[in-house]
Amino acid sequence: MKKAVVLLSGGMDSATVLAMAHVKGYACYALSVDYGQRHHAELSAAQRIAQTLGAHEHRVVKVDLTGFGGSSLTDEKIAVSQQPTEGIPLTYVPARNTIMLSLALAWAEVLQAQDIFIGVNAVDYSGYPDCRPAYIEAFERMANLATKAAVEGSPLTVHAPLLHLSKAEIIHHGHALNVDFAQTVSCYQADESGRACGVCDACRLRRDGFFAAGIEDPTNYRIT
Amino acid sequence: MKKAVVLLSGGMDSATVLAMAHVKGYACYALSVDYGQRHHAELSAAQRIAQTLGAHEHRVVKVDLTGFGGSSLTDEKIAVSQQPTEGIPLTYVPARNTIMLSLALAWAEVLQAQDIFIGVNAVDYSGYPDCRPAYIEAFERMANLATKAAVEGSPLTVHAPLLHLSKAEIIHHGHALNVDFAQTVSCYQADESGRACGVCDACRLRRDGFFAAGIEDPTNYRIT
Repeated sequence: MKKAVVLLSGGMDSATVLAMAHVKGYACYALSVDYGQRHHAELSAAQRIAQTLGAHEHRVVKVDLTGFGGSSLTDEKIAVSQQPTEGIPLTYVPARNTIMLSLALAWAEVLQAQDIFIGVNAVDYSGYPDCRPAYIEAFERMANLATKAAVEGSPLTVHAPLLHLSKAEIIHHGHALNVDFAQTVSCYQADESGRACGVCDACRLRRDGFFAAGIEDPTNYRIT
Repeated sequence: MKKAVVLLSGGMDSATVLAMAHVKGYACYALSVDYGQRHHAELSAAQRIAQTLGAHEHRVVKVDLTGFGGSSLTDEKIAVSQQPTEGIPLTYVPARNTIMLSLALAWAEVLQAQDIFIGVNAVDYSGYPDCRPAYIEAFERMANLATKAAVEGSPLTVHAPLLHLSKAEIIHHGHALNVDFAQTVSCYQADESGRACGVCDACRLRRDGFFAAGIEDPTNYRIT
């Protein structure tokens, strides 16, 4: 059974990716990164999802990015926007995907896994530089020069199966694979029980996605 | 004054790089990574060196790689080799430079710095895949697709000024820039006071380097 490291945030996208990797027959090693995000509801969700979707193992690695700040997710002084923003949103965390993919790369090498899955997608792409196809390709190229495994003839592939999908399409894929979206947390400022604010960018994208997909939204929003 | 993030391990190479960046006129933000290495003498050394060599600031970011293991530096069950090894040494830490450069990238973006310095060199290159020129170039290319800063027109440069130097040449450079090598710790298994074992690969490279440079080795080795 081929092993894969799957980055799992606890949101709906990475949950769908985990289900996709699982159905492809990979033994999935789910990796969550505790980087000092505003709430831990997302990480608790990741734990439940990993179990429900049959991950072989789930690990949480802690790396404190609040010391650097620079994002509304890692600096309490920067408020989470409740209106759509022009350009790159304040929720962008400097180098986050690069750090998370690097950690996935380390674990993949130790596991002798040649596959990493990440749930970046076209909707995020509109604002986040590290969600673009060219970025993912450049990371994969770099990774294949970085590791002992790659040098010794086991190249690595970075899979981003949601890259070109809309939120509605992602929901359709997840739904078909029996992902329980009620378990997932997208909200940037969920409370500790995982209840979503209903007004941040992530909530808006999620709500619009369910509406466009024609699938009932199981999310418990504080403001509806 | 241009800002630069300088990766500082506490060893002689990164100390020399810090001195080089400082003399070039950069305001240096020294970054050390506590990844669960065998001893903390290296990190204490980094703190002293940052002060002595005029770093503007010094930060230590903790990311625990011992959970992944896969190296004699992060897994106590794998012994540090005392003989030269064929191929990639057991001290190779999976994806270490990629993780450290990613953290440097995050801080650089928050600081609006366009320069990162790292002390990889030609001697390490003989064994470590992530010390090769092609790797550094691929990281830089990826970084320039990863960040908001790069997308908005502030490209990043990864400087590896020791890349093509021998250990003896590095020692000459550091010596000329008044680096106090007695403050630096290279040993893979130094004791808490920073005293070197004298027999690991890192000690051997260091000792041979001073001999070849014709400069007195100030290191306090347990076995001479």
